[in-house]
Amino acid sequence: MYKLVLMRHGESQWNLENRFTGWADVDLTDKGREEARKAGELLKSEGFSFDVAYTSVLTRAIHTLEIALRTMGMSWLPVVKTWRLNERHYGDLQGLNKAETAAKFGEEQVLIWRRAYAIAPNPMTVDDPRFAGKDPRYAKLKPQEVPLTECLKDTVDRVIPIWNEGIAPAIQSGKKVLVAAHGNSLRALIKYLDGLSEDDILKVNIPTARPLVYELDNNLKPIRHYYLGDQAEIEAAMAAVANQGKAK
Amino acid sequence: MYKLVLMRHGESQWNLENRFTGWADVDLTDKGREEARKAGELLKSEGFSFDVAYTSVLTRAIHTLEIALRTMGMSWLPVVKTWRLNERHYGDLQGLNKAETAAKFGEEQVLIWRRAYAIAPNPMTVDDPRFAGKDPRYAKLKPQEVPLTECLKDTVDRVIPIWNEGIAPAIQSGKKVLVAAHGNSLRALIKYLDGLSEDDILKVNIPTARPLVYELDNNLKPIRHYYLGDQAEIEAAMAAVANQGKAK
Repeated sequence: MYKLVLMRHGESQWNLENRFTGWADVDLTDKGREEARKAGELLKSEGFSFDVAYTSVLTRAIHTLEIALRTMGMSWLPVVKTWRLNERHYGDLQGLNKAETAAKFGEEQVLIWRRAYAIAPNPMTVDDPRFAGKDPRYAKLKPQEVPLTECLKDTVDRVIPIWNEGIAPAIQSGKKVLVAAHGNSLRALIKYLDGLSEDDILKVNIPTARPLVYELDNNLKPIRHYYLGDQAEIEAAMAAVANQGKAK
Repeated sequence: MYKLVLMRHGESQWNLENRFTGWADVDLTDKGREEARKAGELLKSEGFSFDVAYTSVLTRAIHTLEIALRTMGMSWLPVVKTWRLNERHYGDLQGLNKAETAAKFGEEQVLIWRRAYAIAPNPMTVDDPRFAGKDPRYAKLKPQEVPLTECLKDTVDRVIPIWNEGIAPAIQSGKKVLVAAHGNSLRALIKYLDGLSEDDILKVNIPTARPLVYELDNNLKPIRHYYLGDQAEIEAAMAAVANQGKAK
């Protein structure tokens, strides 16, 4: 049996401000850094160790990982940083406040943008200052790989190659893997691993910086999964994520 | 012309306590973290950017790199962590105070241990709690690669392969490389790059967390090198390093 640990980044500045973040590169808040430290302590006290970590190229996920590893005394761990684990690109919504957007377009429309599997927000344009194509961290991507917007289906499509070509082979070679990423890139992975329907993945809400343990069989099919830590506190955190799209 | 930036880690707890550190995995002091932040600011204000960074598997070098990259807004940079850039292994001296060791064995003997090119301190034994062989970060090394002690010649021998197989090809493929490492692994690299004699490398003292820029020609031969920052302050820092082996 294999164990895989997934972890969403700690609270970011735009989580705090309730803004659509996507590929915008905002950093953690002090609370987010503290969440990352606690996640590291929890992993350490529960006896977890790792052979490799995967994360995105976005600062909030990388810093969450760095702080957790530092807390575990495992800063030496090899880390793979890949754009494929980035948050879902939020298109033209990036930077907008979620509640204001809900008040303007209606909660239903915002829920569709946030959670419908195959409906993406309006795209940004390539001359938008928010466009990722000129950022050196994406210099090696093919032009068609740099998104202008994404629905969750798009995110699944670009996350799965790093599972198939990186994470899954690492696990099957006996390596213990930690993935520090984002609400929607982790949701993409979970949909794939658990074979969830497009409806069911909509109901999955991942709280920040809580280590989520997946036990996998020899074929990497999930046997069970559970969050480390206080379960009541985790359920409250999941409910808070679910409520972010409400107007008030 | 290529530019390569070398940087020794910021002040560590054992730099502060004037103890032989080697492969012992001590962390930075607050001053060391501040030095790393200043190095990042200096690199940023001087317009440096990078495509890849190399560091050791020792916490003090990794944290120096993480803090500098964070300060530059470049946490997304790919980082290669390799034992080949570790500090020189100090054998049975690891953990001992440099001044006390000088008082006991004489300054001359300590200067030989610290600086003679081919004379290593007495080895530790494989059952020594300080022995690296049981540490998971070295699990993939061949048994003969895990040192019990090293002279600078030994360090050169294990540093050069990562230059030849990793850093040099990266530079020649057009990548801008930052190396965050240790006094003696950087000295090993500098001896090789500048073709210094065994005597001359003895006189090279590298201050903590000061970006050292090497300009290299197409064949990676050094054209010139210089430290970024205030030159008088850097010379004082170099003199302080040179004086660490004194009894008083």
